[in-house]
Amino acid sequence: MARIVQKFGGTSVADMDHIRNAALRTKAERDAGNEVVVVVSAMSGVTNRLVDYVNSIGSLHDASEYDTVVSSGEQISSGLMALTLQDMGVPARSWLSWQIPIETDATHGKARIRRIVADEIAKRLGEGEVVVVAGFQGVSPDNRITTLGRGGSDISAVALAAALEAERCDIYTDVDGVYTCDPRIIASARKLDKITYEEMLEMASLGSKVLQTRSVEMAMNHRVCLQVRSSFDESPGTLVVDEDEVVEKEVVSGVTYSRDEAKITLVKVPDRPGVAASIFGPLADANINVDMIVQNVSDDGASTDVTFTVVKDDLDRAKVVLEERRDELAYAELVPDPNVAKISVIGVGMRSHVGVAQQMFSTLAENGINIQVISTSEIKVSVLIEEKFTEQALCALHTAYDLDAA
Amino acid sequence: MARIVQKFGGTSVADMDHIRNAALRTKAERDAGNEVVVVVSAMSGVTNRLVDYVNSIGSLHDASEYDTVVSSGEQISSGLMALTLQDMGVPARSWLSWQIPIETDATHGKARIRRIVADEIAKRLGEGEVVVVAGFQGVSPDNRITTLGRGGSDISAVALAAALEAERCDIYTDVDGVYTCDPRIIASARKLDKITYEEMLEMASLGSKVLQTRSVEMAMNHRVCLQVRSSFDESPGTLVVDEDEVVEKEVVSGVTYSRDEAKITLVKVPDRPGVAASIFGPLADANINVDMIVQNVSDDGASTDVTFTVVKDDLDRAKVVLEERRDELAYAELVPDPNVAKISVIGVGMRSHVGVAQQMFSTLAENGINIQVISTSEIKVSVLIEEKFTEQALCALHTAYDLDAA
Repeated sequence: MARIVQKFGGTSVADMDHIRNAALRTKAERDAGNEVVVVVSAMSGVTNRLVDYVNSIGSLHDASEYDTVVSSGEQISSGLMALTLQDMGVPARSWLSWQIPIETDATHGKARIRRIVADEIAKRLGEGEVVVVAGFQGVSPDNRITTLGRGGSDISAVALAAALEAERCDIYTDVDGVYTCDPRIIASARKLDKITYEEMLEMASLGSKVLQTRSVEMAMNHRVCLQVRSSFDESPGTLVVDEDEVVEKEVVSGVTYSRDEAKITLVKVPDRPGVAASIFGPLADANINVDMIVQNVSDDGASTDVTFTVVKDDLDRAKVVLEERRDELAYAELVPDPNVAKISVIGVGMRSHVGVAQQMFSTLAENGINIQVISTSEIKVSVLIEEKFTEQALCALHTAYDLDAA
Repeated sequence: MARIVQKFGGTSVADMDHIRNAALRTKAERDAGNEVVVVVSAMSGVTNRLVDYVNSIGSLHDASEYDTVVSSGEQISSGLMALTLQDMGVPARSWLSWQIPIETDATHGKARIRRIVADEIAKRLGEGEVVVVAGFQGVSPDNRITTLGRGGSDISAVALAAALEAERCDIYTDVDGVYTCDPRIIASARKLDKITYEEMLEMASLGSKVLQTRSVEMAMNHRVCLQVRSSFDESPGTLVVDEDEVVEKEVVSGVTYSRDEAKITLVKVPDRPGVAASIFGPLADANINVDMIVQNVSDDGASTDVTFTVVKDDLDRAKVVLEERRDELAYAELVPDPNVAKISVIGVGMRSHVGVAQQMFSTLAENGINIQVISTSEIKVSVLIEEKFTEQALCALHTAYDLDAA
């Protein structure tokens, strides 16, 4: 007997047929003698519709009301899932965040979980009841509904798995695992049987949409064994585990891309100490994350060009922040460029293999693709290129690192 | 300065344009110096869609999960209303039942309000904040969401008006008042300026969809002045008030119909003391309301036919309850008939006028419409007829009682 958390994403509970299909998976785990916690997302499309309602009112909305509105999608699917399980003869009950409670801070829209009071649900599990939890939501210290941000249901699932010391957290989604590259672009992409937390973390933050960074991070910190699998077929998915559980380490496990970033270049910034702080401090204050940064010495030696990337959605705000400080920063020109893509190769094997970065650079060069910015870590190399070369770059790199399916 | 409760029904908050229109009415009351509580229903269609989801799973569902699902519609509209008011510069906050709290019993699906802890919302009103309450819902003693039954948002509004000692409770809907008959069926129906609680109570329980019985009952008990009015035009609506505030009393104020009932006949029940109790006791235990009852002596003298009506939605459950007790009740046959309509004429003037019932029976007879069951009270006469004669009966009665508009 084991304790298992199952998380069903929006496409896995898209309509009553899908909910029934998901419930059958829950029933199967329970029939096998396991204790099962089910975490559900909103039926696909529901959250977007609710967000559209809110956005139609005005872009500067009260985030606590936003949360009240958008969290209802998970409330609906949790009740429907409980009812469907009951209809199959499986004792089940829905739990909303404030009923458990799942306590968060008051950062509406992207709240962080502080504490899960798991006593009562653990008791119910022990009694054979399936615990169905509305994902994505928590309750703030002043008793209002919070949401955990996009991908929040994954976070709910991992947090519950940690709080309940579950043996495994299965993330059911519309893909059957983690691939060496996005299979919609690279037809020869291969499904990975296992991947390390570190690699998954890089993949998530570098463009793979399968899992969100925060949920992988949380899984890694609490050593929650994650499995990404499809709710539509029975094949095993991809296990996200500790590095020592991965026997055959590949040098490169995957190639990812992200079109969500935009590039900003500040031309001819005076080259003096503290200039980086005066640029990036105000951006941080405005809650704008800066990712890749390069600083080039300019021809004249007295000034420098600073290039960096921000999330595309933040581009306009970043421009406003920097233009307001034009006198202080004394740059000659601000050049925004939304037409960029970040391409990354990821693999724990890089630690023991040299030449991975070099192979990336030469492959891109052979394809006539110019590299605009480079950023590396222990287990990944990322480059910024012109957006239109995305597919070509992915294809070439996938082949170069020998990732194509046989 | 007054304290006013405004309740907006589903059609009044059907989409963002309608919510904006409703919010303008709230803003106008507040700009006039009033304290305003807004109670919202779900956007029209939303609750039905959620109910359909639940019903698609199975008809014998867990009512607490049903409530979890269907209450989300009001959660959405309360958040959207608060955001819309804020966008107009009106300070506002949404309140869910468990946040106030609005405490109910645990009768899911048609819970009764036990207590409203109004201190915090009264304080907010005093500070000039509009209090937006998700209608239709409460919270049970064991911390689960309950719903108050169809028309529950009216109950929420009246209960809040009573708890907050509001001067008036305006029920905004898609009709501009209470009519002598359903104007969709009888084009010559007239709008009433005033109507007594007692008449409104009968109308509500006898098929008028404008207000629900329980909300009128509650308004009467707490002497809450109700106004039924349209959110789409500025004309005054119908005031529901004490009898002594209505100057010109009509003999008959209105003719109503209901297609929501079904008839059950138990054929040849042994005619012995206690038989009624043995039939209706188990139905009451199963929370099935029985309305009209007749008992006919059968030909053989030793047995009797018992006919009664239940809400159409309860018909299947009622059959199950009675069939389970077939041996005990010893009836020969159970004949269900969903194809019936209840037609009623209502008026406090009946107290001082004779012949109202007689005029009803003769009018129907002249139209060749057979009366199946009769039920009367001090201020109404109801008959059960074959459903297909509904319009014909209404039309004939409306004319016979001189209710047609000039």
